[in-house]
Amino acid sequence: MKKKVILDCDPGHDDAFAMMLAVQNLDVLGITTIGGNCTLENVTRNAIKVLEVIGQADNIGVYPGHSRPTVMPLVTAPQFHGETGLDGPVLPEPTHSPQDKHAVDFIVDTVMSTDDVTLIATGPLTNIAAALNREPRMVDRVREICIMGGSVTFGNWTPTAEFNIYVDPEAAYRVFNSGIHVKMTGINLTRQCCLTEKHIADFRNIGTKAANFAADLTEYFLKTCEDETQLTGATIHDACAAAWIINPDLIKSASMHIDIELKGELTRGMTVCDYRHLRGIDPAVDIERTPQMDFRGEQPNAEAALELDFPGFVDLLYKTLRQYD
Amino acid sequence: MKKKVILDCDPGHDDAFAMMLAVQNLDVLGITTIGGNCTLENVTRNAIKVLEVIGQADNIGVYPGHSRPTVMPLVTAPQFHGETGLDGPVLPEPTHSPQDKHAVDFIVDTVMSTDDVTLIATGPLTNIAAALNREPRMVDRVREICIMGGSVTFGNWTPTAEFNIYVDPEAAYRVFNSGIHVKMTGINLTRQCCLTEKHIADFRNIGTKAANFAADLTEYFLKTCEDETQLTGATIHDACAAAWIINPDLIKSASMHIDIELKGELTRGMTVCDYRHLRGIDPAVDIERTPQMDFRGEQPNAEAALELDFPGFVDLLYKTLRQYD
Amino acid sequence: MKKKVILDCDPGHDDAFAMMLAVQNLDVLGITTIGGNCTLENVTRNAIKVLEVIGQADNIGVYPGHSRPTVMPLVTAPQFHGETGLDGPVLPEPTHSPQDKHAVDFIVDTVMSTDDVTLIATGPLTNIAAALNREPRMVDRVREICIMGGSVTFGNWTPTAEFNIYVDPEAAYRVFNSGIHVKMTGINLTRQCCLTEKHIADFRNIGTKAANFAADLTEYFLKTCEDETQLTGATIHDACAAAWIINPDLIKSASMHIDIELKGELTRGMTVCDYRHLRGIDPAVDIERTPQMDFRGEQPNAEAALELDFPGFVDLLYKTLRQYD
Amino acid sequence: MKKKVILDCDPGHDDAFAMMLAVQNLDVLGITTIGGNCTLENVTRNAIKVLEVIGQADNIGVYPGHSRPTVMPLVTAPQFHGETGLDGPVLPEPTHSPQDKHAVDFIVDTVMSTDDVTLIATGPLTNIAAALNREPRMVDRVREICIMGGSVTFGNWTPTAEFNIYVDPEAAYRVFNSGIHVKMTGINLTRQCCLTEKHIADFRNIGTKAANFAADLTEYFLKTCEDETQLTGATIHDACAAAWIINPDLIKSASMHIDIELKGELTRGMTVCDYRHLRGIDPAVDIERTPQMDFRGEQPNAEAALELDFPGFVDLLYKTLRQYD
Repeated sequence: MKKKVILDCDPGHDDAFAMMLAVQNLDVLGITTIGGNCTLENVTRNAIKVLEVIGQADNIGVYPGHSRPTVMPLVTAPQFHGETGLDGPVLPEPTHSPQDKHAVDFIVDTVMSTDDVTLIATGPLTNIAAALNREPRMVDRVREICIMGGSVTFGNWTPTAEFNIYVDPEAAYRVFNSGIHVKMTGINLTRQCCLTEKHIADFRNIGTKAANFAADLTEYFLKTCEDETQLTGATIHDACAAAWIINPDLIKSASMHIDIELKGELTRGMTVCDYRHLRGIDPAVDIERTPQMDFRGEQPNAEAALELDFPGFVDLLYKTLRQYD
Repeated sequence: MKKKVILDCDPGHDDAFAMMLAVQNLDVLGITTIGGNCTLENVTRNAIKVLEVIGQADNIGVYPGHSRPTVMPLVTAPQFHGETGLDGPVLPEPTHSPQDKHAVDFIVDTVMSTDDVTLIATGPLTNIAAALNREPRMVDRVREICIMGGSVTFGNWTPTAEFNIYVDPEAAYRVFNSGIHVKMTGINLTRQCCLTEKHIADFRNIGTKAANFAADLTEYFLKTCEDETQLTGATIHDACAAAWIINPDLIKSASMHIDIELKGELTRGMTVCDYRHLRGIDPAVDIERTPQMDFRGEQPNAEAALELDFPGFVDLLYKTLRQYD
Repeated sequence: MKKKVILDCDPGHDDAFAMMLAVQNLDVLGITTIGGNCTLENVTRNAIKVLEVIGQADNIGVYPGHSRPTVMPLVTAPQFHGETGLDGPVLPEPTHSPQDKHAVDFIVDTVMSTDDVTLIATGPLTNIAAALNREPRMVDRVREICIMGGSVTFGNWTPTAEFNIYVDPEAAYRVFNSGIHVKMTGINLTRQCCLTEKHIADFRNIGTKAANFAADLTEYFLKTCEDETQLTGATIHDACAAAWIINPDLIKSASMHIDIELKGELTRGMTVCDYRHLRGIDPAVDIERTPQMDFRGEQPNAEAALELDFPGFVDLLYKTLRQYD
Repeated sequence: MKKKVILDCDPGHDDAFAMMLAVQNLDVLGITTIGGNCTLENVTRNAIKVLEVIGQADNIGVYPGHSRPTVMPLVTAPQFHGETGLDGPVLPEPTHSPQDKHAVDFIVDTVMSTDDVTLIATGPLTNIAAALNREPRMVDRVREICIMGGSVTFGNWTPTAEFNIYVDPEAAYRVFNSGIHVKMTGINLTRQCCLTEKHIADFRNIGTKAANFAADLTEYFLKTCEDETQLTGATIHDACAAAWIINPDLIKSASMHIDIELKGELTRGMTVCDYRHLRGIDPAVDIERTPQMDFRGEQPNAEAALELDFPGFVDLLYKTLRQYD
């Protein structure tokens, strides 16, 4: 039986990959949107567009959520995703409308009425935090939350902070300190998830509408990623969070305590990960130490993704794109 | 010709290794002490004791410096170094006295009157910062400063902060922002410098007075390190800073911008390293990218040690201990 | 015509006075509750009790809101208000129930459908901030917000922070930076609103049910205030916010820029008021300078209460208590 | 017998008044200088010029100290004091030279060898903090320190921070937490010390060289103060600190705990004064409560000036200027 999930996202090229993976391989109860990569209006339209490309817009509702972060003004990322938030692919205006229900109400009502829901969040955590504040009993109802955000090591938006957490650190603080078990696919992990020209060619060969869409997305995103970061490849961060819930074997991880720095001058929005029990620069080197580790400080509240089986991920992605026909 | 250095330290078991390496292989103009691992009184006495063990107390002066950090109260580390700061080896009370000159005056006068001095600092950076404040023109006189402190990745005293920087973050801020080129051997590097029972046995085989002293130090320190960290081995952090100046080939490094977080709630005392231009969790994996990197933010002000040639380090250490005879 | 208001509160002895003043003299569209002085459950029950005492529980709905602050855990003030949040008066269990609608929804729906609503907030600003995040267009619909909270000068909970702001500084930040004009009755003002034994005697003389309730409230609160603060009298802070909306002539004020400190170690939750344009320690001394002032920094976003016409306030209170019959 | 003092200053127009008051009425052991209002070079030159005007340059040495703050870069105040730091009066180049001894060494040596020295500091506290770090035993030797800096209420450089503390908050933190009793004349007090055209005329009538110098200083400073602050008069802040030591009756004060905020985003450099035990906006209103106050938090470490006897101050100033003949 497919796992029941709500996907909270801000599409976004990499969110689109997360959506395609989730909709085919999980029981997506609804998609909620959040201002982040682009404005709420745009990301909501983009979410509907993606569902229409993969023929699921009649089956899965899109619920618009918060248009800005909990406390501070919104920061967006047009340099990566373009003005629409999903530049590149040429898509018709969507024919479906968003749901009337607010994302926060959808999350609260669904979780309180449905057992064993997993939350996947690939944007700023504003909606999730608002839902927790609206209905604190959600903590005992949610199975777990898997986020794309943060990092065990370096950041991207600043030397220490990743974009999704940086946009709404207060919401992230609320979520990581809520008591819900958090699975974190930070950019330490997602940088291992890099698509290149070779994958674009493979998408074209697969040839389904979804696969061609994936190729169009990657062509645009590859260029902006490489221009902005001087690194090679298009890092489809958000897809990793969906993939981890679909197939836990794709990712090696370690339990650790993770908290959010709200006050630092250089470190605001950093996911402060306590992995002192792991030797070496690279925590992945030492995953097998995890069971014997002795936390000197706080108890672990999260599971941090460390190592991606990238070939396995690509297989899952190709298989998924073939199935959308 | 041996490089001219001043060694600013707070012995400390690992400082003792740094002293033995430096005195044999560099032109040590003087040793200055700083409250850190233990009180100023104790670390000054320990520095003299070490010089007496290796027969250099007549040749090299020990200049006592500040007894506490620039702004905040002193934190010490008795759980690692014992109450004396150098528990373990049984040594007679020292017969030499510390110099009358204050460490800060010795540093300023030496640097202003001697070309091409390298500073090696293996304790909190209080003395160095005070010297820079006392004589700002030092910046243009010092060749470089090589510190043991901070980390490219995780901390030890807190999840993000290493002890030496944590003790006096304001001094570290002053040094990293001074304009002097900083070489940093952080704990990401020094955790690669781990002595075990095997090395103790080798020290005993070498059999010089210095080597037996090294064995005694390691026996004590091995136990406290393993008890406190649940890791294997005795990490002789400070020795790495001396080794890098003695033989640059022992360490692979990358240029990057490093700044000190003073305000964070979870991150105070963190050395915030901008290595976003390096792919992967482990910056060492990607050292060769350094030359082409395009820093998006601040210009590099430091060179961070990433990978230690540990066999080469051990060779240097053994050779050095044999020479003290 | 009476002004239309929503009263957001956490009764609380002084909130009870605010309720009695507001219900008699303003058009109270609804009362929303927020965890603060006591738990949400208790403050909601207390709000209903107060309405029942004054015979208005059939006319005015009580809408429960958030049970905890936006980001950090809840702090309450049992030392002032007792375990129930309204210790002292002996009241029967309420016979009315709270409304099913959430406070945030009530605020949003009312403001969006009703012109010219004033918000009076006498607890932490969690509900108001959540409403602004839920419906940002509220900013252009609300007439103004009048809060009890913060201070132009000293704090009460800490040297610089007043309780209501201290409990949820992030919500306060959101409100003060929202663009809505804020009227602030901080404790610099409310300390001028001190009831003593004399007023209790007057309440008893008035003799209405409401007046006797006021006497009971004051008897209890007088004792806890004096015990906790070593000051004289019972400071019924929250009543000032209602009084200002009822009769603007009761309070002298000055326009100034007010922001919320979120990061300070000693100053978190401080309302940072820029009154440098007013000479003297006491800004009230110099109110008449206000019109000519030249703000050197930010533009004024708020109006800070500085001087209370306490005899006028007491007249209003006595008149109000007589009318509840 | 005159009280023995060291005056640490950064002249500066108002420092010049402090110097003239101190030299005539106290036993000034030496004058130390600190970069603040202007560069170290300029303030040192200015200090000598002032001594030459009043004919004391042969008797009192000027010891140059630190040229920049402990941790952060220097901020100066040319808009108030002009490019030289003492614009306005036309003075010849000084014929005396500064002493060779560093200010910090002069402070340490004098305090350790002389009983009962009072420190008066009218600039950033960098030298004093450095002296305390250099010789922690100074704490038990100094009689007290009287500073111009900080504020019980509002700031000048920012809404909450006064210039001298803002320039080097870390040094101020070190001094206020040193254990030395601090007397603070903050701008809440010094704004009561305002010279106007009337005083300039009086200075001209007195007619001594010192009085004419005072007139020249005030003419320039009056204009820049009024231009910058839109307030009336020239606030000769620093003179208050000297006056308090000369005649304690000129100032009413209260004991309180004062600490320095280092981390706030809006409040860095604020002197956080705990005067919750005093009723009213204006702590001066309630000075007589001081003896009975019950501090709820930290014990008092300082005495804050609240009310200046301005006529008495002016009398002292006039008498002093007449005596310089």
